[in-house]
Amino acid sequence: MLIVMDRSASQEDIQRVVAAIEAHGLTPHPIPGELRTAVGVTGNKGAVDTAAFENLPGVLEIIPVSHPYKLVSREFHPSDTVVPVGGVPVGGTRTIVIAGPCAVETLEQTVTIAKAVKERGADLLRGGAFKPRTSPYSFQGLGDKGLDILAAAREETGLPVVTEVLDTASVELVASKADCLQIGARNMQNFELLKAAGRTGKPVLLKRGMSATLEEFLLAAEYVMAEGNPNVILCERGVRTFSDFTRNTLDLAIIPAVKRISHLPILVDPSHGTGKRNKVIPMSRAAIAAGADGIAVEVHHKPEEALSDGPQALTPDMFADLMKQLRPIAEAVGRSL
Amino acid sequence: MLIVMDRSASQEDIQRVVAAIEAHGLTPHPIPGELRTAVGVTGNKGAVDTAAFENLPGVLEIIPVSHPYKLVSREFHPSDTVVPVGGVPVGGTRTIVIAGPCAVETLEQTVTIAKAVKERGADLLRGGAFKPRTSPYSFQGLGDKGLDILAAAREETGLPVVTEVLDTASVELVASKADCLQIGARNMQNFELLKAAGRTGKPVLLKRGMSATLEEFLLAAEYVMAEGNPNVILCERGVRTFSDFTRNTLDLAIIPAVKRISHLPILVDPSHGTGKRNKVIPMSRAAIAAGADGIAVEVHHKPEEALSDGPQALTPDMFADLMKQLRPIAEAVGRSL
Amino acid sequence: MLIVMDRSASQEDIQRVVAAIEAHGLTPHPIPGELRTAVGVTGNKGAVDTAAFENLPGVLEIIPVSHPYKLVSREFHPSDTVVPVGGVPVGGTRTIVIAGPCAVETLEQTVTIAKAVKERGADLLRGGAFKPRTSPYSFQGLGDKGLDILAAAREETGLPVVTEVLDTASVELVASKADCLQIGARNMQNFELLKAAGRTGKPVLLKRGMSATLEEFLLAAEYVMAEGNPNVILCERGVRTFSDFTRNTLDLAIIPAVKRISHLPILVDPSHGTGKRNKVIPMSRAAIAAGADGIAVEVHHKPEEALSDGPQALTPDMFADLMKQLRPIAEAVGRSL
Amino acid sequence: MLIVMDRSASQEDIQRVVAAIEAHGLTPHPIPGELRTAVGVTGNKGAVDTAAFENLPGVLEIIPVSHPYKLVSREFHPSDTVVPVGGVPVGGTRTIVIAGPCAVETLEQTVTIAKAVKERGADLLRGGAFKPRTSPYSFQGLGDKGLDILAAAREETGLPVVTEVLDTASVELVASKADCLQIGARNMQNFELLKAAGRTGKPVLLKRGMSATLEEFLLAAEYVMAEGNPNVILCERGVRTFSDFTRNTLDLAIIPAVKRISHLPILVDPSHGTGKRNKVIPMSRAAIAAGADGIAVEVHHKPEEALSDGPQALTPDMFADLMKQLRPIAEAVGRSL
Repeated sequence: MLIVMDRSASQEDIQRVVAAIEAHGLTPHPIPGELRTAVGVTGNKGAVDTAAFENLPGVLEIIPVSHPYKLVSREFHPSDTVVPVGGVPVGGTRTIVIAGPCAVETLEQTVTIAKAVKERGADLLRGGAFKPRTSPYSFQGLGDKGLDILAAAREETGLPVVTEVLDTASVELVASKADCLQIGARNMQNFELLKAAGRTGKPVLLKRGMSATLEEFLLAAEYVMAEGNPNVILCERGVRTFSDFTRNTLDLAIIPAVKRISHLPILVDPSHGTGKRNKVIPMSRAAIAAGADGIAVEVHHKPEEALSDGPQALTPDMFADLMKQLRPIAEAVGRSL
Repeated sequence: MLIVMDRSASQEDIQRVVAAIEAHGLTPHPIPGELRTAVGVTGNKGAVDTAAFENLPGVLEIIPVSHPYKLVSREFHPSDTVVPVGGVPVGGTRTIVIAGPCAVETLEQTVTIAKAVKERGADLLRGGAFKPRTSPYSFQGLGDKGLDILAAAREETGLPVVTEVLDTASVELVASKADCLQIGARNMQNFELLKAAGRTGKPVLLKRGMSATLEEFLLAAEYVMAEGNPNVILCERGVRTFSDFTRNTLDLAIIPAVKRISHLPILVDPSHGTGKRNKVIPMSRAAIAAGADGIAVEVHHKPEEALSDGPQALTPDMFADLMKQLRPIAEAVGRSL
Repeated sequence: MLIVMDRSASQEDIQRVVAAIEAHGLTPHPIPGELRTAVGVTGNKGAVDTAAFENLPGVLEIIPVSHPYKLVSREFHPSDTVVPVGGVPVGGTRTIVIAGPCAVETLEQTVTIAKAVKERGADLLRGGAFKPRTSPYSFQGLGDKGLDILAAAREETGLPVVTEVLDTASVELVASKADCLQIGARNMQNFELLKAAGRTGKPVLLKRGMSATLEEFLLAAEYVMAEGNPNVILCERGVRTFSDFTRNTLDLAIIPAVKRISHLPILVDPSHGTGKRNKVIPMSRAAIAAGADGIAVEVHHKPEEALSDGPQALTPDMFADLMKQLRPIAEAVGRSL
Repeated sequence: MLIVMDRSASQEDIQRVVAAIEAHGLTPHPIPGELRTAVGVTGNKGAVDTAAFENLPGVLEIIPVSHPYKLVSREFHPSDTVVPVGGVPVGGTRTIVIAGPCAVETLEQTVTIAKAVKERGADLLRGGAFKPRTSPYSFQGLGDKGLDILAAAREETGLPVVTEVLDTASVELVASKADCLQIGARNMQNFELLKAAGRTGKPVLLKRGMSATLEEFLLAAEYVMAEGNPNVILCERGVRTFSDFTRNTLDLAIIPAVKRISHLPILVDPSHGTGKRNKVIPMSRAAIAAGADGIAVEVHHKPEEALSDGPQALTPDMFADLMKQLRPIAEAVGRSL
């Protein structure tokens, strides 16, 4: 941490800051410059709470140097983490594909789609039983019954199941029936939910919030890990910007950024990330080329009848085409699919 | 709703769209143009789900015309809503001021601040017992004990209490001890929490999400109202943009925008909206001048010792100055304070 | 400037950085911490170019402490600057109002509007002779002829004229006929134009770019001032964000931010800043309440026939109402109008 | 175009709109709905100027259906455009690589880098002679002398030259010495410069503005093409968002979006798009995988001594590695490199 003093700060102001640093058990390093003085602070184990210094007279600004996350950090855990989801390793040399409908609608629909994606090479089945919907008048998902349908589809196909959990009250229920708990973008900073998901010990697929910085995203993962659960999978799904030709702006540079400072695997969701079916395949290729550990896509056998997010779902034929296109890209970056 | 067909759409494609509209009990109005055909849709009561049409062959795009919200809309409720919070009317001709510490720390701290803001003209007391913190290692609030401290401060000063609720599990508890439930920006689309808060019937202060559009904000309020709870107060607290001289960008134009399409009262939080103490007073003036129904500000008697968000809190003296500056602005817009 | 070393940086790496700092005639201050070393740098007059250090082995990041602007800075010029535009002081205790059509269309239109705004209290006349238009097929302005019309309207009303200049080739021409050169948002970083405008010595009204940070905005003003021209007036006109109920997001907190670090006057353009006629008056009030030195608004006597930006122009009656509403706000902040 | 009437609009209001449409030589199509009436408009050749209708009484909003661009549009020119730059085709089946220093510094530096990138497979040489710099105190480029250095490097290596032009006054000069004129992000809406570049007939590499929508980007290209110059190459270089781990947010989904509606080639600049050397290679792979027609990257043989943007430049060795990694990606998408 660096405390930058105002140009007009007096020697007394500087002494007060130095004393406050020492009072916190830290070491001050005053650096007198031509125009102003700055005071370096060392001796802290993690990030220092800046509030204690920010309001002292003569302080212009505080520049943090350490970051507040630990468990998610590559500095504390140098090798890549591989998260096993129902036997499928996420992270590592293989890239994986999660596929399925946006919402679980019926047993027949879900099993049909699960079989279709399994045959075409999917590794995990996705599908929403509890759906977060912008409008209270939109279809809200089948709830508990949807979880049973997903379990039946797993039985039928052998695909482990990833599904969203919306509220602490249903965390136990979802954890008892699914292989991986998804926490959606809207809940990325629902800290009680993060803690509850952490306590289940189950793998957690954590989606980046619509306007989350990388530090906020990693700290959300830190909430899960701080409960003793190391099984966190990150997922970029687009952020909100002025750019209006896609529903969100897929921020793929987060992939090398995460790989540099964290050991956690990171996937990309090009379906929500673009909101447009015709951009799903090119952006899936781009994600794998950028180094993602896999993708999560929406597939529906009758997208024009889908109860939720139809316009971005691929048909089974398009999904087969996607898989065919992804394989050489995965190989080009030294991985398999 | 307007369905715009591709230039290359065939007569068959257009007929299929017309038939699909009729199959939904709606009325199609084909409009053949020089370059393409569009099909107007009427007969709907609210917004139509576009998914049923978006994927039909030859459809280029769907342009919604109706909005999906109802109860929050001025079209359905022409006169301004006034929400009573512990006897204090929010909305209407008087503008109101909510003040207090970011976090409840101790009984003494909270009562001291409550008395200070009461004496200087505040209408309602704010203070966080459950705190949403970006890092799991930051102070998370006193919880239940904090609620009792707030109740004691109310006893002492007569100020009704507004406090945040983070999770469905504690909605009942908070509703039993506070006068108004605050739902924070990070939970604006925590739909289970919105429903639970709606069911309490208590006034709900709903903060705009960091990247929420106006429609999403109003639909979040619609979730609360759809549970039979008409007591919703909106609050602008800044949105996330590239602009970096404040912590968030306070989007004050939302005040006339809300007033035009909704009947709900709207407040402004310039403390979180700017994150900088020296910008709180000017932006409070601007909020009242733009037509806000009041403001919510953080006050701390020792901001340099505050456990949370110290740099944006006003001292009691600064708060007195704020009140003095706001009164003539309120009068200039034909209101009292 | 603070150079933060990687945790794995060797003593050799640190020595190399120290030597490089000294080689630049600056003074290094190594601060060894528990986890890493940082090196403070002093002895610089302004901002140091970081490129020389950023790529040395073992350097994690460079944190600038000084800012690269000088002439615009309050540190170098403590008292507020007042810019005289054709005899009207901009800045200081009076707030001013610039009004007129978006585009100069005809002599009659311009004189009619100029008289209308003069009678209702405007201080300066605005109007575009050279128009920057997003589409090459939109009306591009009358050019030179438009400048003559503006001059005639000044003759008729006594109002000094503010008009936009688009290109270095016409800077001399515009400077010879107008009282103040406007540089639009799209040209805020057209550095050749900034320099040319600076060389005229004429007052320059500089609009903030659509995605400009405060530092970039001030550096654009620094380009004008570095040519020896102290007469710069800043103008906030909205930035581009995801927020879609206005055409741009009016970032009013920039007013106290500018006042804190610069001595230049700052105006607000609520017409372009919102793009919606019904939001111009509330946001004008907010701008003055926040401390702006004035506003610039579009007025048209027949907005439904305007060739450019009709939907945001006020009628003369609405302009009269605006003036009436602004006066008590200006008084409430201790100023006149 | 669809004109949506207010719910409270009278029959008279609707008749007035219908008459106004007819007065413009267009055909009105009233669509009475349950809650409101909308009026479709046909008969227009391109986009209609909405201003004439937006302010008529009873009009709620205008929804444009046609787009204002023509020449850039795939509807008007179905097959892909290939732009020849000094004999190198840009667009088509081969992907191309533009490489070179950010700024031309000396003859020796430029020739050294040009040879290095030529040997490693670059197709075109880039290098700035006129540099747009945020601060007036930063190195502004060698100007005319820099153009001669670039010409000498072309002589030496055979690589055609791409270089930026900043102002209409130097367009002729740059066009006489370079093979392709680059128009930078800051000048994307410098319309006079676009027209002047269009008039040279030379290939123009047009970079997307920092906050440009796709429509604005295409309309900027339309300005060049409207002067009779079909040789436009688009370039995505990152947009400005809140996301702070890169200097800009590289919006790769624009590649399939452009390919869908325009026939122009599109490149990606991952150096400016990320601002971080360690992200250039992964994002270059992603760009090619997403379907870009090539990339433009900065290379410097001594990046730690570069006068401009050192931190994002690749060394020649890293550039060789980039080329090696890109080839299998290009093949995976059915192209060569």
